[in-house]
Amino acid sequence: MKTEIRELLEKVRNQEISVEEAELILKKAPFEDLGYAKVDFHRNLRQGEPEVIYGAGKTAEQMIGIVEAMKQRRVSPILITRLSEEKAKLIAEAHEDLTFFSHAKIGVVGEVPEPDGLGSVVVCTGGTSDIPVAEEAAITAEVYGNRVERLYDVGVAGLHRLLPHLETIMQAKVIIAIAGMEGALASVVGGMADCPVIAVPTSVGYGAAFDGLAALLSMMNSCASGVSVVNIDNGFGAGYMANMINHMS
Amino acid sequence: MKTEIRELLEKVRNQEISVEEAELILKKAPFEDLGYAKVDFHRNLRQGEPEVIYGAGKTAEQMIGIVEAMKQRRVSPILITRLSEEKAKLIAEAHEDLTFFSHAKIGVVGEVPEPDGLGSVVVCTGGTSDIPVAEEAAITAEVYGNRVERLYDVGVAGLHRLLPHLETIMQAKVIIAIAGMEGALASVVGGMADCPVIAVPTSVGYGAAFDGLAALLSMMNSCASGVSVVNIDNGFGAGYMANMINHMS
Amino acid sequence: MKTEIRELLEKVRNQEISVEEAELILKKAPFEDLGYAKVDFHRNLRQGEPEVIYGAGKTAEQMIGIVEAMKQRRVSPILITRLSEEKAKLIAEAHEDLTFFSHAKIGVVGEVPEPDGLGSVVVCTGGTSDIPVAEEAAITAEVYGNRVERLYDVGVAGLHRLLPHLETIMQAKVIIAIAGMEGALASVVGGMADCPVIAVPTSVGYGAAFDGLAALLSMMNSCASGVSVVNIDNGFGAGYMANMINHMS
Amino acid sequence: MKTEIRELLEKVRNQEISVEEAELILKKAPFEDLGYAKVDFHRNLRQGEPEVIYGAGKTAEQMIGIVEAMKQRRVSPILITRLSEEKAKLIAEAHEDLTFFSHAKIGVVGEVPEPDGLGSVVVCTGGTSDIPVAEEAAITAEVYGNRVERLYDVGVAGLHRLLPHLETIMQAKVIIAIAGMEGALASVVGGMADCPVIAVPTSVGYGAAFDGLAALLSMMNSCASGVSVVNIDNGFGAGYMANMINHMS
Amino acid sequence: MKTEIRELLEKVRNQEISVEEAELILKKAPFEDLGYAKVDFHRNLRQGEPEVIYGAGKTAEQMIGIVEAMKQRRVSPILITRLSEEKAKLIAEAHEDLTFFSHAKIGVVGEVPEPDGLGSVVVCTGGTSDIPVAEEAAITAEVYGNRVERLYDVGVAGLHRLLPHLETIMQAKVIIAIAGMEGALASVVGGMADCPVIAVPTSVGYGAAFDGLAALLSMMNSCASGVSVVNIDNGFGAGYMANMINHMS
Amino acid sequence: MKTEIRELLEKVRNQEISVEEAELILKKAPFEDLGYAKVDFHRNLRQGEPEVIYGAGKTAEQMIGIVEAMKQRRVSPILITRLSEEKAKLIAEAHEDLTFFSHAKIGVVGEVPEPDGLGSVVVCTGGTSDIPVAEEAAITAEVYGNRVERLYDVGVAGLHRLLPHLETIMQAKVIIAIAGMEGALASVVGGMADCPVIAVPTSVGYGAAFDGLAALLSMMNSCASGVSVVNIDNGFGAGYMANMINHMS
Amino acid sequence: MKTEIRELLEKVRNQEISVEEAELILKKAPFEDLGYAKVDFHRNLRQGEPEVIYGAGKTAEQMIGIVEAMKQRRVSPILITRLSEEKAKLIAEAHEDLTFFSHAKIGVVGEVPEPDGLGSVVVCTGGTSDIPVAEEAAITAEVYGNRVERLYDVGVAGLHRLLPHLETIMQAKVIIAIAGMEGALASVVGGMADCPVIAVPTSVGYGAAFDGLAALLSMMNSCASGVSVVNIDNGFGAGYMANMINHMS
Amino acid sequence: MKTEIRELLEKVRNQEISVEEAELILKKAPFEDLGYAKVDFHRNLRQGEPEVIYGAGKTAEQMIGIVEAMKQRRVSPILITRLSEEKAKLIAEAHEDLTFFSHAKIGVVGEVPEPDGLGSVVVCTGGTSDIPVAEEAAITAEVYGNRVERLYDVGVAGLHRLLPHLETIMQAKVIIAIAGMEGALASVVGGMADCPVIAVPTSVGYGAAFDGLAALLSMMNSCASGVSVVNIDNGFGAGYMANMINHMS
Repeated sequence: MKTEIRELLEKVRNQEISVEEAELILKKAPFEDLGYAKVDFHRNLRQGEPEVIYGAGKTAEQMIGIVEAMKQRRVSPILITRLSEEKAKLIAEAHEDLTFFSHAKIGVVGEVPEPDGLGSVVVCTGGTSDIPVAEEAAITAEVYGNRVERLYDVGVAGLHRLLPHLETIMQAKVIIAIAGMEGALASVVGGMADCPVIAVPTSVGYGAAFDGLAALLSMMNSCASGVSVVNIDNGFGAGYMANMINHMS
Repeated sequence: MKTEIRELLEKVRNQEISVEEAELILKKAPFEDLGYAKVDFHRNLRQGEPEVIYGAGKTAEQMIGIVEAMKQRRVSPILITRLSEEKAKLIAEAHEDLTFFSHAKIGVVGEVPEPDGLGSVVVCTGGTSDIPVAEEAAITAEVYGNRVERLYDVGVAGLHRLLPHLETIMQAKVIIAIAGMEGALASVVGGMADCPVIAVPTSVGYGAAFDGLAALLSMMNSCASGVSVVNIDNGFGAGYMANMINHMS
Repeated sequence: MKTEIRELLEKVRNQEISVEEAELILKKAPFEDLGYAKVDFHRNLRQGEPEVIYGAGKTAEQMIGIVEAMKQRRVSPILITRLSEEKAKLIAEAHEDLTFFSHAKIGVVGEVPEPDGLGSVVVCTGGTSDIPVAEEAAITAEVYGNRVERLYDVGVAGLHRLLPHLETIMQAKVIIAIAGMEGALASVVGGMADCPVIAVPTSVGYGAAFDGLAALLSMMNSCASGVSVVNIDNGFGAGYMANMINHMS
Repeated sequence: MKTEIRELLEKVRNQEISVEEAELILKKAPFEDLGYAKVDFHRNLRQGEPEVIYGAGKTAEQMIGIVEAMKQRRVSPILITRLSEEKAKLIAEAHEDLTFFSHAKIGVVGEVPEPDGLGSVVVCTGGTSDIPVAEEAAITAEVYGNRVERLYDVGVAGLHRLLPHLETIMQAKVIIAIAGMEGALASVVGGMADCPVIAVPTSVGYGAAFDGLAALLSMMNSCASGVSVVNIDNGFGAGYMANMINHMS
Repeated sequence: MKTEIRELLEKVRNQEISVEEAELILKKAPFEDLGYAKVDFHRNLRQGEPEVIYGAGKTAEQMIGIVEAMKQRRVSPILITRLSEEKAKLIAEAHEDLTFFSHAKIGVVGEVPEPDGLGSVVVCTGGTSDIPVAEEAAITAEVYGNRVERLYDVGVAGLHRLLPHLETIMQAKVIIAIAGMEGALASVVGGMADCPVIAVPTSVGYGAAFDGLAALLSMMNSCASGVSVVNIDNGFGAGYMANMINHMS
Repeated sequence: MKTEIRELLEKVRNQEISVEEAELILKKAPFEDLGYAKVDFHRNLRQGEPEVIYGAGKTAEQMIGIVEAMKQRRVSPILITRLSEEKAKLIAEAHEDLTFFSHAKIGVVGEVPEPDGLGSVVVCTGGTSDIPVAEEAAITAEVYGNRVERLYDVGVAGLHRLLPHLETIMQAKVIIAIAGMEGALASVVGGMADCPVIAVPTSVGYGAAFDGLAALLSMMNSCASGVSVVNIDNGFGAGYMANMINHMS
Repeated sequence: MKTEIRELLEKVRNQEISVEEAELILKKAPFEDLGYAKVDFHRNLRQGEPEVIYGAGKTAEQMIGIVEAMKQRRVSPILITRLSEEKAKLIAEAHEDLTFFSHAKIGVVGEVPEPDGLGSVVVCTGGTSDIPVAEEAAITAEVYGNRVERLYDVGVAGLHRLLPHLETIMQAKVIIAIAGMEGALASVVGGMADCPVIAVPTSVGYGAAFDGLAALLSMMNSCASGVSVVNIDNGFGAGYMANMINHMS
Repeated sequence: MKTEIRELLEKVRNQEISVEEAELILKKAPFEDLGYAKVDFHRNLRQGEPEVIYGAGKTAEQMIGIVEAMKQRRVSPILITRLSEEKAKLIAEAHEDLTFFSHAKIGVVGEVPEPDGLGSVVVCTGGTSDIPVAEEAAITAEVYGNRVERLYDVGVAGLHRLLPHLETIMQAKVIIAIAGMEGALASVVGGMADCPVIAVPTSVGYGAAFDGLAALLSMMNSCASGVSVVNIDNGFGAGYMANMINHMS
């Protein structure tokens, strides 16, 4: 950004552009206004990543429009999270290159890149009910160019399910630990692993699980080092964070 | 109790006692009133156990009086929980047979019986800060006639600390799992063990531990079967419950 | 487990198996992977109990598959909790030996064993609305080989309903006390009984009952000794724990 | 109040007072301003009761001044709640007719009237730690002219302590049920009694008692009819309400 | 109850009945078991009041049966709360003397008695949305023999709506103050009135009203004396309590 | 109001009206009773503003009646908030001059006045999902005579979206900052602006957003001066407050 | 700010300053770094107000230094909030022109300006315990150039205390309503007043007041329009906001 | 670990060690038992990091012993967190090579290694009160071999304080964003940065900050991608996680 400002100032000095133009440029927003959403095109450049549309609460028509605008700017791939099957079908009519992952409730427009991260992102869950959140995390990580290994249903109440995968856990570059109920998986995995662990509490459970609050508090208090937490059911956030870490250089 | 009623009714019929006397007997309370506390002598008979005084909020003088009254009824041993060192000294002046366990903050008046339970009660903690609660549980269990094995500082973030004790855990008759912070120990031990696990959340931790709430919720949601929970920091309750289970017959 | 390791090591020494095989065996997980769930067959051996399937969130097809796999390993009986009537019918088409308990929402595949516990498990509820949770607890205990006595609708606001059953309560080996609203039943029963009491808060109530939170906190704070608590509405957990205690030896 | 307005209007019509005076009278506040507190003298007339000073957070000097002003208006007796012993001594130097009740932390200036209510107010507590709150309620009720019967330490975990007092409970006009921890006393007493029960949760307990929250929620959800609740530790409020009910006519 | 016991004992002494019979009578529960509910017939005698059926969660068939059993014992009137219109119609087919109050969701079987209380029960609400709860309270009070005055929509944000009714409030024997949102009505009415005020928080509101929690806490903390609180939306409880107070003698 | 009282008193003195009439006038409430709602006509005079009907929970018929009554008193415009499309259609049949704003769920009967405030009210939102709340605020402000500028989807995670509008923010007279999730918009805008900021937390978000609680707490703790908060999703309240401030003089 | 950018760009074009200098100016932070705090001097210009130091958690030495730096920039007056008496004395030794307001815990360095707002800011409290928060608000408003009227101890449980001040309330330009316990004052005052009301919940109260949470929720849910809320005990925030509104033009 | 097992198995096969010895080795715990704490020496090897002692709740004597044991195993450096100045002095007497960082409350025994991470860890705080937590994070990161840049007091209410550091933020490898109150810093920084952001809520604030809960919820709901959260005030956890990420390879 510094260079842009300097370039601009130099142009002003050289009278290549007028003061008014420069002022305007400094103010002109790097986004396109579709009426219902400001599409942010600079972010793609700034962060070097696919663009994401949060699908919950948007109509299929709105999403078709946003994808259209993105395509014109050659953004690819485009990730749509929290996308219902019904809306996915409608979008697919307009954009045939949409792939829909039903477990993850994710749609992807465009080609998924080859994995180019430092190593594997391991996604593990406590139970089978946590799989939708896990798939949101896993597909996200894959779309961002990571190799993903899935270890599902390895909850701590049966350690003999988790222990056979010790090697996978020891060799991971990043681990996403996903669990509802008491959320103990994060601590157990965090104590085994050598790498950053991103914990995702899920709203799986009943009674005193309080829609994920129990798992959230449990994970926040993990006695293992190297564990940090994202919002309840936020598979996307975990996948995105894991991708960032797996692409450090 | 039925037989007592029947006996009484038979005496009434046989006019061995008057109606008025019978009515009085039915009402007469099985306790002695010291003014500041109703001492419950039937309970000792009914449950076959030592008597317990909850020391918090009672003066040394009050406790000396209660112990005195109990001794006259030949109650032994007497367990005083949440007893400060200062008050313990004052009580010991009046009752020389008081033994004070400073970690557990428990005083015991009278002889501790030989262990006669089915097997061992295993008391394990996640960290060293949980030890006072653990000692309250352990001493309680011992005073009630149980052999106790202590496994302290075996928290789940370092499973290699817990795994060497697998055999102890597998052979326990009852396990008391005590942990603060995220309270995951209960789930992990519950998944390993064959026996009932009594979980005690502790107020150890900071921040989002919220004085034991995180551990409490975590333990309530344990995905392991055979785990039940007592109040935060309630070592006595866990020891008492463990004793009951270890004396099933 | 110790013996298995030793046996294995002896075989290695005797060169009955190769190092590579031994390594593999140590790692090979004691479960069968059906893709959607890891079925845990060791647990049946380890704990000597029927196997349990948590039915909520599983499709009938998935459950049919899991039951099939279990049957091949001769697991019997199989308990399916939180099972809807609709899915029960579908499963019964594939597995005719399914018995469905509609109040408890439990399905049982295979023969229920004769009661062989130490004595009776008493299941009592505060009101009629708590009965579904109570039946989940009662059927669970029965499937695990316990004689169960039901005392329903004996809430504390009408002690004259509870008192006639004093003898039943005094003779129980384990009591499961189930109540919503203010959850006082646990304390009252706990004060009467000589045996362990497992308290189950239910989500019955409205307003400040906060979906079982009031009952949960109330039960956690029970002033009676020998009371421990499981999750809100967790009838299965209480039945399982009661079975463990009733089979101590 | 209607008659006062009418009288005033008639005086205006009869030109006994000017419009300006009438306007002033309508506005003139029925209280005296001491700078630090508005002393409310109409309330004594309006409600026919002793005046109350909430002592917490007021200096001894302020309270001496308020009592002085009240005495000049012939208010008697005067009740000072949440009064520390230290401040009580200072006030007693200025107002020798102060009686201080140390358990209740209440000071009374002036004569306590003879009981003239419909019957007895029964004040019962779950444990001995609830006594300070109970005494605040009991002394308050006495100062307002009620006969009070105290049933302390009759908690539900030992029903045999409560049952001998069944007759007292059945004959009460109002019952104040005071308990911390799980607060079950309110439901049990409410189920036995024929009269209104005012429940007072106390902050007695630890862990998941959460400073009285557990007892508060428990009492709000009482399954007994005829139970209503005041604030945690609010003995005064319960005593005042009980007095109102016991003086219905 | 004392007299019953004494009578029985006298009969035993006079050998009018056998010991066994007496024992049986002492144990025989004063309720009838319909399989799905214990109907409590002593309560009607003990408290001199209509019997109440909590309709939520009961089928029309169950309620028809309970009413039938009550009628055979000549209980009248019978109050059914939380009764849906649909079920009311079904019950009315079996019991033609059912009157259904749709706002209150209350059904009454039998004659409503003439008001015979000390005076009026005033039921006031903050807004129009609180009316269903208010009608539950009002109909309850009426069925129990109280004259009821309704002051609806007199919330504190428009005091000029409340002030014209000052006289009604001043002359009430009991006031039921019902409000959601911030629940301030209880404090304002409590400050005006000379009589006991029963506050009912309602779940009316949105956002930080948290389903009645805001009103509940607000009412618990009322700075007015003579205010006590029942559960959120508990119109029945308030009406019942008001009736008790209005029938003091 | 003073003048009205004085005028009345003068009429009494001058015997232009009788004492009884004066008494009646003082009591006669400034509202009209439609049975289901007290319509408040003084408020329009007292506050000089359009009248508002809170549409949630009212039937179309009730609202038609209230509008009718208002029209007869020449109240205009009339604002109906939380109005569903379905009910709006029914009302429009009776009152053709109803304009319905579907995003805001607001209906307006009558002419919207020209803006006459001090300057602009700026309504900004963090995301597109907050727009319904924002439109409720914006339409409210417009109906009350304010010029409104909308800045939607300028959340803090992309400051480059907000910064281009710095001038708009700097020149606003009042700002309404609307955001769910973490609610940080209020602090950021509050730190930039020179004018009062009214923050509206929304229930947008999932997981630990807890239906707006996270945003509410965040906004309450804003480290920027000049920020105050209204209830979750309370667009109307913010618009009304903004109007008051923008019409200061 | 626009003009500054434009001026700068014009200087660049006119080569009055170099590109590097311009770049530096655009970046140069408008603050002075004292090591322990970034003093913000632009804010005074930007917002036209006195500068504020939040005293809690700062040493007297740090505050002396900050005041010194501000004085050199001719900032006056300087407001120090949450200032203990002890630290105030130390600061007064270095800066003799410090005035300390002990109730408000506010120190003011420099001259307090003459009131120049549109009208009066009325600060009212529910009780005497709320006065410290009220004084923080009142002194803040005065230092910012507002005339303040104080109405203390006018809580809603005694409306006759509040009603005499109706005229003051009706004529206010802004009202700050401060209350703990149930916080009803905000709704009552909000219903009476014609002007914006800023509500401040206080931590005054006990039990279910939960350190201000009850008052906070109550105020958030105020059924009166024109009420917004600041943080618990945040007298400064309310005074600052009131000043902004009272200086609209 | 695999190789260790294989090596061991090979030794068994080659009869270099006996079966019993092998069995023992598999069980022998990789820790030394000091009675009060199990010191974990494998962890240093496993994770290649300094060893950490959590100082809160340990006596100086215990820590001296633990350090002694670690030194004998040549562990260096050793980090002691939550260390009071008083205890630090005592430890320094036994271990002269202790360096104490008073703001961070961290003691370091041994040499701090040269930074060898991928780039800088940027530690930024919202206010000056957050600095102790920030220093705990910063010193931790430094001891683990990272270059740290500190940006303190750059809270979002004054964006002009944060914006000059945009370049530092853009070039960071990992950012630790520390804030109390509303915790908005995490979202703003997360929106600007290209790298992982670890958010640390602090208990700084008052009133509705609820000891860090507001900041915690706010950060959990951050609308910026690439943000994850650790426990309230957990500077160590953030520093440790940042180190892991900054050493990815």
